[in-house]
Amino acid sequence: MANDNLSAVIYGPKDLRMENREIAIPKAGDTDSFATEVQINVRATGICGSDIHYYHAGRIGNRVLDPKNPMVLGHESSGIVSALGEGVKNLRVGDRVAIEPGTYCKKCDRCVEGRYNLCYEMHFSGSLMNGPNHGSLCRYANFPEHLCHSIPETMTYQDGALIEPLAVAVHSVNKTPIKQGSHALVFGAGPIGLLVAATAYAKGAEHVTIFDINEHRLQFATEYLPKIKTVQLPLPESDTPDLLAWSQQTIEKLVTSGVIDRENIDVCFECTGVESCIQMAMFAARRGGVIMLIGLGKGRALLPTEVMSVREVDVRGNFRYAHAYPEAIELVSQGKVPLRGLVTHQYKLEDTLEAFDKVMKGGAGVVKVQIGDF
Amino acid sequence: MANDNLSAVIYGPKDLRMENREIAIPKAGDTDSFATEVQINVRATGICGSDIHYYHAGRIGNRVLDPKNPMVLGHESSGIVSALGEGVKNLRVGDRVAIEPGTYCKKCDRCVEGRYNLCYEMHFSGSLMNGPNHGSLCRYANFPEHLCHSIPETMTYQDGALIEPLAVAVHSVNKTPIKQGSHALVFGAGPIGLLVAATAYAKGAEHVTIFDINEHRLQFATEYLPKIKTVQLPLPESDTPDLLAWSQQTIEKLVTSGVIDRENIDVCFECTGVESCIQMAMFAARRGGVIMLIGLGKGRALLPTEVMSVREVDVRGNFRYAHAYPEAIELVSQGKVPLRGLVTHQYKLEDTLEAFDKVMKGGAGVVKVQIGDF
Amino acid sequence: MANDNLSAVIYGPKDLRMENREIAIPKAGDTDSFATEVQINVRATGICGSDIHYYHAGRIGNRVLDPKNPMVLGHESSGIVSALGEGVKNLRVGDRVAIEPGTYCKKCDRCVEGRYNLCYEMHFSGSLMNGPNHGSLCRYANFPEHLCHSIPETMTYQDGALIEPLAVAVHSVNKTPIKQGSHALVFGAGPIGLLVAATAYAKGAEHVTIFDINEHRLQFATEYLPKIKTVQLPLPESDTPDLLAWSQQTIEKLVTSGVIDRENIDVCFECTGVESCIQMAMFAARRGGVIMLIGLGKGRALLPTEVMSVREVDVRGNFRYAHAYPEAIELVSQGKVPLRGLVTHQYKLEDTLEAFDKVMKGGAGVVKVQIGDF
Amino acid sequence: MANDNLSAVIYGPKDLRMENREIAIPKAGDTDSFATEVQINVRATGICGSDIHYYHAGRIGNRVLDPKNPMVLGHESSGIVSALGEGVKNLRVGDRVAIEPGTYCKKCDRCVEGRYNLCYEMHFSGSLMNGPNHGSLCRYANFPEHLCHSIPETMTYQDGALIEPLAVAVHSVNKTPIKQGSHALVFGAGPIGLLVAATAYAKGAEHVTIFDINEHRLQFATEYLPKIKTVQLPLPESDTPDLLAWSQQTIEKLVTSGVIDRENIDVCFECTGVESCIQMAMFAARRGGVIMLIGLGKGRALLPTEVMSVREVDVRGNFRYAHAYPEAIELVSQGKVPLRGLVTHQYKLEDTLEAFDKVMKGGAGVVKVQIGDF
Repeated sequence: MANDNLSAVIYGPKDLRMENREIAIPKAGDTDSFATEVQINVRATGICGSDIHYYHAGRIGNRVLDPKNPMVLGHESSGIVSALGEGVKNLRVGDRVAIEPGTYCKKCDRCVEGRYNLCYEMHFSGSLMNGPNHGSLCRYANFPEHLCHSIPETMTYQDGALIEPLAVAVHSVNKTPIKQGSHALVFGAGPIGLLVAATAYAKGAEHVTIFDINEHRLQFATEYLPKIKTVQLPLPESDTPDLLAWSQQTIEKLVTSGVIDRENIDVCFECTGVESCIQMAMFAARRGGVIMLIGLGKGRALLPTEVMSVREVDVRGNFRYAHAYPEAIELVSQGKVPLRGLVTHQYKLEDTLEAFDKVMKGGAGVVKVQIGDF
Repeated sequence: MANDNLSAVIYGPKDLRMENREIAIPKAGDTDSFATEVQINVRATGICGSDIHYYHAGRIGNRVLDPKNPMVLGHESSGIVSALGEGVKNLRVGDRVAIEPGTYCKKCDRCVEGRYNLCYEMHFSGSLMNGPNHGSLCRYANFPEHLCHSIPETMTYQDGALIEPLAVAVHSVNKTPIKQGSHALVFGAGPIGLLVAATAYAKGAEHVTIFDINEHRLQFATEYLPKIKTVQLPLPESDTPDLLAWSQQTIEKLVTSGVIDRENIDVCFECTGVESCIQMAMFAARRGGVIMLIGLGKGRALLPTEVMSVREVDVRGNFRYAHAYPEAIELVSQGKVPLRGLVTHQYKLEDTLEAFDKVMKGGAGVVKVQIGDF
Repeated sequence: MANDNLSAVIYGPKDLRMENREIAIPKAGDTDSFATEVQINVRATGICGSDIHYYHAGRIGNRVLDPKNPMVLGHESSGIVSALGEGVKNLRVGDRVAIEPGTYCKKCDRCVEGRYNLCYEMHFSGSLMNGPNHGSLCRYANFPEHLCHSIPETMTYQDGALIEPLAVAVHSVNKTPIKQGSHALVFGAGPIGLLVAATAYAKGAEHVTIFDINEHRLQFATEYLPKIKTVQLPLPESDTPDLLAWSQQTIEKLVTSGVIDRENIDVCFECTGVESCIQMAMFAARRGGVIMLIGLGKGRALLPTEVMSVREVDVRGNFRYAHAYPEAIELVSQGKVPLRGLVTHQYKLEDTLEAFDKVMKGGAGVVKVQIGDF
Repeated sequence: MANDNLSAVIYGPKDLRMENREIAIPKAGDTDSFATEVQINVRATGICGSDIHYYHAGRIGNRVLDPKNPMVLGHESSGIVSALGEGVKNLRVGDRVAIEPGTYCKKCDRCVEGRYNLCYEMHFSGSLMNGPNHGSLCRYANFPEHLCHSIPETMTYQDGALIEPLAVAVHSVNKTPIKQGSHALVFGAGPIGLLVAATAYAKGAEHVTIFDINEHRLQFATEYLPKIKTVQLPLPESDTPDLLAWSQQTIEKLVTSGVIDRENIDVCFECTGVESCIQMAMFAARRGGVIMLIGLGKGRALLPTEVMSVREVDVRGNFRYAHAYPEAIELVSQGKVPLRGLVTHQYKLEDTLEAFDKVMKGGAGVVKVQIGDF
């Protein structure tokens, strides 16, 4: 293994620097962290929308990067255990792992009720809240033992780094009533939308339809998941006077033309964050159906509250995941959720800036970009 | 008992006529209705917001009254069994009952899954959908046996007619995670808000706070439920540039001043339908909390979708009730939910127009108006 | 189609007669049955343990056949719709269906709560309770429309008749916490045990082990479900002084030798009814695990109540099924549950007595015997 | 406060010695215990069946006291915080608390799924498993901060020490479907049976009946809980040839005579551990009902497995409690569960041997004996 610790450190907008940082010794446990650390030689790290936010704007919401206290980026990673803190019990040097990037307190009310993704003291890799919390877009990083999940021989490091977005999908699907025979709509054919569709299908939803405005993404979706349906959505004009009415009419047309079997749509997964998509999801669901909000978007939307009350359509939100890594790994290792083809571009750690450039430019052919020593 | 069947028949906006209609013989069961009828001599009927809508506008939404096919109003009723259809098993003439006003098909997917309030073929008394369906603001009306729920001697007819709005409250609370020790906020101190607060308290929520803009309604709430807290909310200016931001700031102030213990608010019951209240409810709930939408309002609202996703605040809707009458009756008969004082005005059936006039005029002293032969 | 209605009529022990009975006209619906009938030309009927009980002993429990009021046997059937009662909505002549054999009242407390398999007024085909209720081991039989479930082209009549035992498996698995990643043990490699193992696997239980005393049945199980493990169990001596202790020791040996990973066994499905198997299931489950009792046996067993309390091992029972047919059909039509190979012997309706003879003789090569016009 | 640490130390059968032990300094947290300690000046400790087992037999099951390594008894305690370990956050010296006596690991599979009462590494006060674990029948003992639950001014130390058995009742009731309107039977009118009945009633079960063989205990039950019914059960003869048949017949008689409304009994709480009572519970429950096993008894019983399968009567076990202390304290402080009268005898810590003597002698007038500095 390499002896350096080349790391992608973000200082501010567009100011991402590749630096050689110290290789830290993994710590023995203490009460505060409730965590005995292992050192991971990181092998693959995916780039996610939030990484791009920090890169582009130097902030997320009202949390702004401080150039005097910069942060290592990265939270979608896999690697190999390179050293053990004192007291590690279940891992050995050489184990291959997917890294769960959020360290939770295990003590607050949310942790105690099992929803640790909502922990009040969450330290999430490569994010500023309660931080800066250094991430895993580097050669070596330390993580609590219980957050390093072993992956089987059959899974590559690329697969291992995809477990993070897949865990979002698993958590989302598990918060809905998806079961054998369910009908689901997925808005958005990006990485999360694809993984949500695959997970819902793996867990029994035979009738899955993906919506997107982009023909190429839908084409990719069809190749990735041959058993699902895809539908290309129109874009509202930017000066649509009543966007909510437009969304309702768009769905009514799809119902009338037989594309959507409305009173059978049990769950709509909204993975775009776009206002009209959230609205359409609500008009498409059956009475008593469920909308799962995964995409973030601008954070506010005009919603048809009448649909929520008169049709008892529930809206649930999703934030990251809790207890989802083991199931995500199992779904992949058993072949129930495919990952093939999702990583469309790979870069060496040394070429990180090039990778970010690629994601910024985007395009329908770019699904997931990963960086690492594969 | 009276021999006539004086009935309140609505023909159009402001056109409510008192007519003597035929007293129908209760039918034996048939497959379509799945219902053997009993004839009820109605004794008390409450006036509800939807009655007023029909009275005021001659319509609800896009369903418009047809003067050639007018409708008997009324759905919050109690009475005494006056005749039995052939095959009635569990009721006898003279039984006192609360009438559940929605006849469901028992066959559609929603009925089969037990959510009959969402039945595709619902016939709801005094409403136009799948109708007109004649209501119970009259002397005699027939209802399927299984929708006539016996009430004990200790309950008055006034109490019996209040079971309908209480069933809404029971259904709402049961759709939330309210349990022993929960904290709840209730927006709106009208009849539904009061009954929701009482029901949540009866089912374990020791910490219940009612919000309203009206001092007199809050005063009434305090007398009705001495153990709960009340808070008077400000009204946004009509020209508030960003209502969502105003709602967020209003809640932040209440949190800062210690009025709301935000990370402990498990459930917010929204009983007003007012946009700023729905928004405030979302900002007030704890991570992982639940908003229950009960009030209807204008049917659309700008909502902070970021709160739903990042804090996993779920929004659930409520439409009427299913399987709630027995529990509502029991909560009253055991003294767990008080009804005293809620009926502030009573009118004879002959004085129905006067009663509607009273409700239209409104005022803080008007909580629930009932009509009947008490 | 044939014009006769050859039927297998049971009069008493070993007294099964093939008679040509009248072909009844399917009835329009009425309130009591809540059922509009369709006439089915039966094409395949499986023989089940309860059929054999009636055939062998002329009784089940304290319900005894009355030779003056004999009964058509059979409840595992599929067929083709040959006539419609007035008012049938969703089926047409020529539709191929799997027949759900229990008509429930839709009115009692158990039906209303959705557990219609526990209906107080259940009429189950080919059984004496609330009967005799004529079954479907005949050429033509009438059933309520909502109990005739369409099967796709890809399913044979043999498959259709296997939906009945598969529905038992589906109902059982759904009453347990089986999910992605669960570990399950199945006691008994007969038809029900095999279908339970297949269903648990299909619904996420990757780690499924089948136990049986018979090597040939286990061999069959391995061919039927290649991904599961099988273990041959010893038989206790008939004079074992303390059978419960024997069962505990047998499990301890399997744990010690690594065959069972005890603290991981989430669910044990007991499909034999044999006392020592029920006992072993309880000793094998993890703390907080679940035992599902499916096999009937002699109806009583000495159980380790200490395990139930100190380890919180819950014991749940299974009786037939409710709402399980659609899921069973879907699991088969999607290829998630295989049925190939389960029907080891087929007989024409005319050769029914020969078929019963075959089942009575039994042997490890006899899994499921079906009768019909295939 | 006293400066000594008088402690009740058990060495073997009947060998309970009062010794002055060192007052330990509360420890700062470490990873293994995940616990920062507080020192409690114990004020009240109840004597429980398991204390008596150790006292009488010097063992529980196959765990035997080692005289060279004796153990302080006691686990039903309340007290006042007398010192804080470094890092304690939520408690102060002088706080009055109920002590939850089981320290769990927070790391094993059972802890992670929230069922910490089933922790593989449980250290339970005054018990031998994973121990000996010193208990709280002493003047001073240290406990992890998160296991010391504050009690309000309105609760006495006697009340605080009763929270432990009440937590058993709360945990048991929460594992059943008890809700508003449920019918429940409770077998056994000892302290646990009484608390279970009170808790079930408090959580909505209006129809609660307690069974016992002892008239005086039933008389006490009636005074303690005036709204419940009591029924005196017969005792089977010691030479009853078929105890299971006897139990069935006994229940049939109660059904026939109208004492039990069988098809309405939702839950039977078995708090005696006596074989015939467990059997009777199973025959008394409605189809689809639930038996909750709380009493331990001899650890094995002949059970009617036919009832479990054909009537889908589920049997659930209860072991101690998880997450139950806060709810137990709230139920008492709100007046929903009464504790008055349950402590029938009090002794000073110096008179501990006398107290054990009293419990050993027993009698219907002895409900709960407590020891302490009240």
